[in-house]
Amino acid sequence: MTKSKHGFSVTELTANKAKHLTRSPSFKKLTKEDLDYFYAILPRDNILVAYNELGNNDELLKHSTDWYNLFRGSPSAVLFPETTEQVSQLLTYCNKQHIAVVPQSGNTSASGGSVPVFDEIIISLKKMNKIHSFDELKGDLICDAGCVLEDVDEYLLSFGYQFPLDLPSRHLCQIGGNISTNAGGIRQMRFGNLHGNVTGLEVVTGEGTIINTLTTLRKDNTGYHLKNLFIGSEGTLAIVTKIAITTARLRQGINVFVFGFATFEQVVQAFSKAKKCLPETISAFEVLDRESIECVAQLGYQQPSNAVFPISTQHNLYVIMETAGTDPEYENKKAIKFTEDLLKEGIALNGIVAKDEAEATSFWSWRTMLPRAIVQQGPSSIHFDISLPLPLLYQLVTDTRAWARENDMIGKDIHAIFGYGHVGDGNMHLSIPALRVDEELRKTVDDFVYGWTSQYNGSISAEHGIGLMKRSYLSYTKSRSSISSMRQIKDVFDPNGILNPYKLLPTEKEENDGAIIRKRADVGC
Amino acid sequence: MTKSKHGFSVTELTANKAKHLTRSPSFKKLTKEDLDYFYAILPRDNILVAYNELGNNDELLKHSTDWYNLFRGSPSAVLFPETTEQVSQLLTYCNKQHIAVVPQSGNTSASGGSVPVFDEIIISLKKMNKIHSFDELKGDLICDAGCVLEDVDEYLLSFGYQFPLDLPSRHLCQIGGNISTNAGGIRQMRFGNLHGNVTGLEVVTGEGTIINTLTTLRKDNTGYHLKNLFIGSEGTLAIVTKIAITTARLRQGINVFVFGFATFEQVVQAFSKAKKCLPETISAFEVLDRESIECVAQLGYQQPSNAVFPISTQHNLYVIMETAGTDPEYENKKAIKFTEDLLKEGIALNGIVAKDEAEATSFWSWRTMLPRAIVQQGPSSIHFDISLPLPLLYQLVTDTRAWARENDMIGKDIHAIFGYGHVGDGNMHLSIPALRVDEELRKTVDDFVYGWTSQYNGSISAEHGIGLMKRSYLSYTKSRSSISSMRQIKDVFDPNGILNPYKLLPTEKEENDGAIIRKRADVGC
Repeated sequence: MTKSKHGFSVTELTANKAKHLTRSPSFKKLTKEDLDYFYAILPRDNILVAYNELGNNDELLKHSTDWYNLFRGSPSAVLFPETTEQVSQLLTYCNKQHIAVVPQSGNTSASGGSVPVFDEIIISLKKMNKIHSFDELKGDLICDAGCVLEDVDEYLLSFGYQFPLDLPSRHLCQIGGNISTNAGGIRQMRFGNLHGNVTGLEVVTGEGTIINTLTTLRKDNTGYHLKNLFIGSEGTLAIVTKIAITTARLRQGINVFVFGFATFEQVVQAFSKAKKCLPETISAFEVLDRESIECVAQLGYQQPSNAVFPISTQHNLYVIMETAGTDPEYENKKAIKFTEDLLKEGIALNGIVAKDEAEATSFWSWRTMLPRAIVQQGPSSIHFDISLPLPLLYQLVTDTRAWARENDMIGKDIHAIFGYGHVGDGNMHLSIPALRVDEELRKTVDDFVYGWTSQYNGSISAEHGIGLMKRSYLSYTKSRSSISSMRQIKDVFDPNGILNPYKLLPTEKEENDGAIIRKRADVGC
Repeated sequence: MTKSKHGFSVTELTANKAKHLTRSPSFKKLTKEDLDYFYAILPRDNILVAYNELGNNDELLKHSTDWYNLFRGSPSAVLFPETTEQVSQLLTYCNKQHIAVVPQSGNTSASGGSVPVFDEIIISLKKMNKIHSFDELKGDLICDAGCVLEDVDEYLLSFGYQFPLDLPSRHLCQIGGNISTNAGGIRQMRFGNLHGNVTGLEVVTGEGTIINTLTTLRKDNTGYHLKNLFIGSEGTLAIVTKIAITTARLRQGINVFVFGFATFEQVVQAFSKAKKCLPETISAFEVLDRESIECVAQLGYQQPSNAVFPISTQHNLYVIMETAGTDPEYENKKAIKFTEDLLKEGIALNGIVAKDEAEATSFWSWRTMLPRAIVQQGPSSIHFDISLPLPLLYQLVTDTRAWARENDMIGKDIHAIFGYGHVGDGNMHLSIPALRVDEELRKTVDDFVYGWTSQYNGSISAEHGIGLMKRSYLSYTKSRSSISSMRQIKDVFDPNGILNPYKLLPTEKEENDGAIIRKRADVGC
């Protein structure tokens, strides 16, 4: 395998590219004795080592390279435990021996969080993929961290439920990774966030201690809510091994809409009207700009039912909206009335409601195919997931385009700028395929976008997390007192810092540099 | 003031009653110099001291005694800061001087969490009660910790929104206390929990450091979610000073139902049917047993519209249910059909839908008046808020009654046993008015109920929190590794342990004793 997942050359090793990163001398290099210890715990097939007798280097490369082909490590080994006890034994040993570890689920991280930077070993959860229990009455699920999101959703379907999370990477991503990165996705406005839905976790800390808060009780005020600390900690405090979560009842009356708009103000007006008229049932409100729709169209993706976008492609902005209610007839009537009103009031220029499930799937595919269409546009992709106050959401895209034009970057350094995202959550994705792999270029774009975000009190990561990619920008968004508390919490659960090193927490220099940029004061609101 | 809020004698000082508690010698006794320092920071009227020239001991007693008249401390002073900076200055000083502090909001804690045990000073947030901003488009509110829940709700009403929390103590409790105790309440099944709704907090740690994560952004994955650690930490890590929260849109089509049942199995069937038929709109599902309804009726409470319970009082169990939707006509039609079906299918024996708002308020008053009716039944009340798997929820009440009868306690030690609670969240309240204030009696009842709960993998506190009352039972519910992590987290934010001492975390002996009872293993699920 000399090509990346998307057909481009495999990216250079992170260690060679990122000159500002240095391997920490406190971590031990893996020895034969260490490997022997791993073989004593795990079956032979559950350990993958570079250039070993099985010749499985393609497999190793898959685990070493991130989905965006931006980062590549050279793990000394990839371990596949099958039980929580094995994870605990491995981490206890690694902690004592100071062996650095990267926890890995579906390896779909969008911030370089799920692959090694240097020679860290990988602990992959993919062989821990059992569903343990499901309570049909309350919809409570307990499953392993390595379950693939789509598999869990299919299981729940038979009971009339669905997982309270949906992502374009659903066929690859695993629940443990979803939890560790506090994934948000397309339908967060219906389901709410994972902090609200996860009722309990089983995790193994950096010291190998098992912390079990695995309960399906909806209310449990007995001490600090540790589970909420692990949700979104990106594998730097503990490895999530099991999850208890409240799932959502499937609804039969689903309507999917596509609207066309001239301005983002109109998009906000439509959103406001939808929140007012359809508050119980609105489940997604996604904006895509014309450039994004054209990107999917140009690539000639096989749409499930047809390849033609359902309305004129001459609008500046599009919204794919979804409502989900119990009563199909009533919901459809409301959907048609809502669309008519939006057109009559001149808020939307064009609008259509999918007439059946196949058409609904086809409408959605323009959104779900987009990330895959974008990564095929160039050998490297600079992408962002920014949270902003709603009225400013699309200004991020237009201001970045203006800046790129002023600096004569389009066609020379970058292919184009795509803007799309979750209006319902104030979360804009900005994707910029670059014409070459160039760390300097990436830094130039990052500096502009994160600086802009900090200026408007946004968040530099709405849902993808900090990982390796945004580590040096954390203090653009978070105060020094917050970062200092994070460091102390890291020490509580992972005192030797073996879990996902070089990720999430900035160096002191990076923190200082970022704090200068950060305009927001630490005190007051 | 020689009487408690409910007309009984003021309870004995906790220090005299609870022989197992000892004042920690590491805390300094307040000196004149300390007071002088407080006077330098706060206006004269913002400090309350025992027997001072203002002779305001009634006021002091109100701050020193808990709502259930179970606990009373003798605070050296009560301080009323008006700004976050003042809170920070006070805590910085207290931390250096090792002066113990109890943070206090509305002082409606049901677990003894909001009053001193010995001479701890109180920092009351009640003078910090401003609403800072409200965004009508998304429903995002920023307010001070000392705002009273009911006041905030009235403010939101004018915008067509409501606070995502409702409690019988809404006229007294304050938002900061709600957050610090992760309050749940009557409509959690609609709104979800506070971990899902709070978007940001401003807090002051035990060292006086201000941590500001006050954002209204719905998504923000930039490092550990510290706010979620403070939610539910019962003032033992930090004092919450400001809150950013997503509020809920008011719905016009509200229907309130009362049903009568013979068995708890029927209640579960009705709940299951409601979740299936009315998933978008069901907002409350409260069970009350006959004893509870009779308690409210006997006390002859002034009902808003009438004093007559709307259906026969001869059933064993009652449910007050609420649905809330956007379209009043459609919702009412569904409500009537649902009620008819429940009666037709023989699930409920009796059922009625309130015909107007006045009747709806009257139906609800039987639930909201209940806690106040119960505390008037005896000089002391032993009460519980237990989380359990749904089918076991009411068995807790019947088993406790059987145990009390076997031990000949009813009429001798206790007045009666009342069972009521939030079926939607699997949360049962068990209230037992005692005929005398007797620590031994309370311990006997606690041991039985918490032992029973632990046996069935329930939680000893669904929503009231641990406070002082349940400290020695924490390890009935939480594993040793969890409690050990909690201790380390406490050390991060409050290294001198000055914040709400003697609360939440058990002593090592208490932890060991509890761990023996706890049946659930720490490993596996």
